[in-house]
Amino acid sequence: MDNLLYNQTVFFKNKPRIVGNYSIVGPKEKEGNFGKYFDFAMEDDHFGEDTFEKAERKMIEKALLGAIKKANLKKHDIDLFLAGDLLNQIISSSYAARAFDMPYLGVFGACSTMAESLALGSVFVDGGYFRNVACATVSHFSTAERQFRFPLELGNQRPPTSQWTATASGCSIVSNKGEGPFISSATFGKVTDYGITDVNNMGAVMAPGTMNTMLAVFYDTKTEPSDYDLIVTGDLGKLGSEILIDLMEHHGVKLGKNYCDCGQMMYKIEQQVLMGGSGCGCSASILNSYIINEMKKEKLKKVLFIATGALLSTTASQQGETLPGIAHAVVLEI
Amino acid sequence: MDNLLYNQTVFFKNKPRIVGNYSIVGPKEKEGNFGKYFDFAMEDDHFGEDTFEKAERKMIEKALLGAIKKANLKKHDIDLFLAGDLLNQIISSSYAARAFDMPYLGVFGACSTMAESLALGSVFVDGGYFRNVACATVSHFSTAERQFRFPLELGNQRPPTSQWTATASGCSIVSNKGEGPFISSATFGKVTDYGITDVNNMGAVMAPGTMNTMLAVFYDTKTEPSDYDLIVTGDLGKLGSEILIDLMEHHGVKLGKNYCDCGQMMYKIEQQVLMGGSGCGCSASILNSYIINEMKKEKLKKVLFIATGALLSTTASQQGETLPGIAHAVVLEI
Repeated sequence: MDNLLYNQTVFFKNKPRIVGNYSIVGPKEKEGNFGKYFDFAMEDDHFGEDTFEKAERKMIEKALLGAIKKANLKKHDIDLFLAGDLLNQIISSSYAARAFDMPYLGVFGACSTMAESLALGSVFVDGGYFRNVACATVSHFSTAERQFRFPLELGNQRPPTSQWTATASGCSIVSNKGEGPFISSATFGKVTDYGITDVNNMGAVMAPGTMNTMLAVFYDTKTEPSDYDLIVTGDLGKLGSEILIDLMEHHGVKLGKNYCDCGQMMYKIEQQVLMGGSGCGCSASILNSYIINEMKKEKLKKVLFIATGALLSTTASQQGETLPGIAHAVVLEI
Repeated sequence: MDNLLYNQTVFFKNKPRIVGNYSIVGPKEKEGNFGKYFDFAMEDDHFGEDTFEKAERKMIEKALLGAIKKANLKKHDIDLFLAGDLLNQIISSSYAARAFDMPYLGVFGACSTMAESLALGSVFVDGGYFRNVACATVSHFSTAERQFRFPLELGNQRPPTSQWTATASGCSIVSNKGEGPFISSATFGKVTDYGITDVNNMGAVMAPGTMNTMLAVFYDTKTEPSDYDLIVTGDLGKLGSEILIDLMEHHGVKLGKNYCDCGQMMYKIEQQVLMGGSGCGCSASILNSYIINEMKKEKLKKVLFIATGALLSTTASQQGETLPGIAHAVVLEI
């Protein structure tokens, strides 16, 4: 492993715990590999709203309320709502926050948002600043696709390296008391750019930043891959995961069978999503369903969760910029 | 004053200090009321770049480097870069972060970003998680105008309630040791929406959220307006400030001569900016020049800084949504 000096990790002594977790997905995600684990699946992508954007907002509102309920808390127990999403000006999160009488902090880390919000929520709770912090994110295929790429009506063919933005939301309540997995450390990533310009190859954009953050986790926390029951990234997809495995091997770290990627796992092969899922809701919904639930049953005891974001912007791309990526990590234990 | 239960404030016992502060503005801002206080003024809005967006990014990079230098620190001393801006996917901040080998957290609070990043930076430093956190934001008239309103080339007439997005950036280094004003508390705002739909009346959009946060500050910290040498909002502009004064009076709080607004103060009347300045760089540049410098000279000893954001989105507006606002606050003392 590298001997570079990493110092990107903060440690939590007071065991901030995830006392409530909720996931909500669209019909396509319901048919995927994790269908039976999600708390709620919408019958259609409109969710009773007249625009996809309003549906996306309703999803994160429902995730927030669901997580509060599962934590056996009331709305007024939540000291802070920490959220972000992919839409310009993170409108899904901000407009959702409008519906609740809670202090709100908007964050932006593209698809790294679930880890970013969990890390910040843990800092607030561990430091004794707040008791209960709700950490959430959401993405929606139809809003992301038309904002970042093409109008849906065009029916464009998808390139083989593309990923499918998951219609999904997840929310965790981080608390200073109660039962559930606790967050033992958080590692904040650096913006990393290997010069990729293909907006349909998000896995390649995000893999280098993920490698940087993963190396920092192992170095800062003095652990190695075998110390974890599960190392999970989200969402590199099939190609991005393979690039990450290669990159890590170049740094002397072999990722074994305990490594997987939420994007790669989300859908079934016959669903034809090419490299797999993406979107901040993809890893958020899998974390807040399967992973945390397995931890509660102690089938997984130590999990490294690394959410990975492509800092994609149509303006920057149109001005000839390459695409940077970032990844933030949290270690969950029970 | 209201007897509502506010609980939006976190207190810092370990006096996280602003040990470095830097401001950079465009030529129009240089000619304004604070021209002589800014650290650096660009000769033109392009700043040697071929697009306004790249100029904006260069501004926040320069603000970050300037603040690190003024803090007598080196780049590798910065444990975290906390920043956000108005552009979609906060590209100015994220692409600026790419140029530095520092962990980075992107935040989004529209024009409330300077207070949001300072508040978060203070939590990290006060809680002992990081030693030095760089908190920054930037805005640019030409990038914001064409993203949120009209192409610059149209030369649209500006309505009388409009504000001028400041071309400006500010950066503060919050540290666990050194000299400078310290942050004694931070108050996190709630998203507030009084039903305004006019995208050219940001002052009216932001005033209600500012009122909510200001009431929470006074209640939570057991203070009243006369306890502060300066209460400064940013950036409500002339109309928004007048609305705020009215709203506060309805709640039994009289704002006196120690209250002012960065947007209202930024430009001279003959510069014809109508209701004044806006943009997250407006309050950030005035805080990181005049205000902090006066605090260092002990001419101002206790300052309530409330940065105010309009959560404006073209997508939400086009879908018939009203415009919500938010405000976050920090109390600075020396």
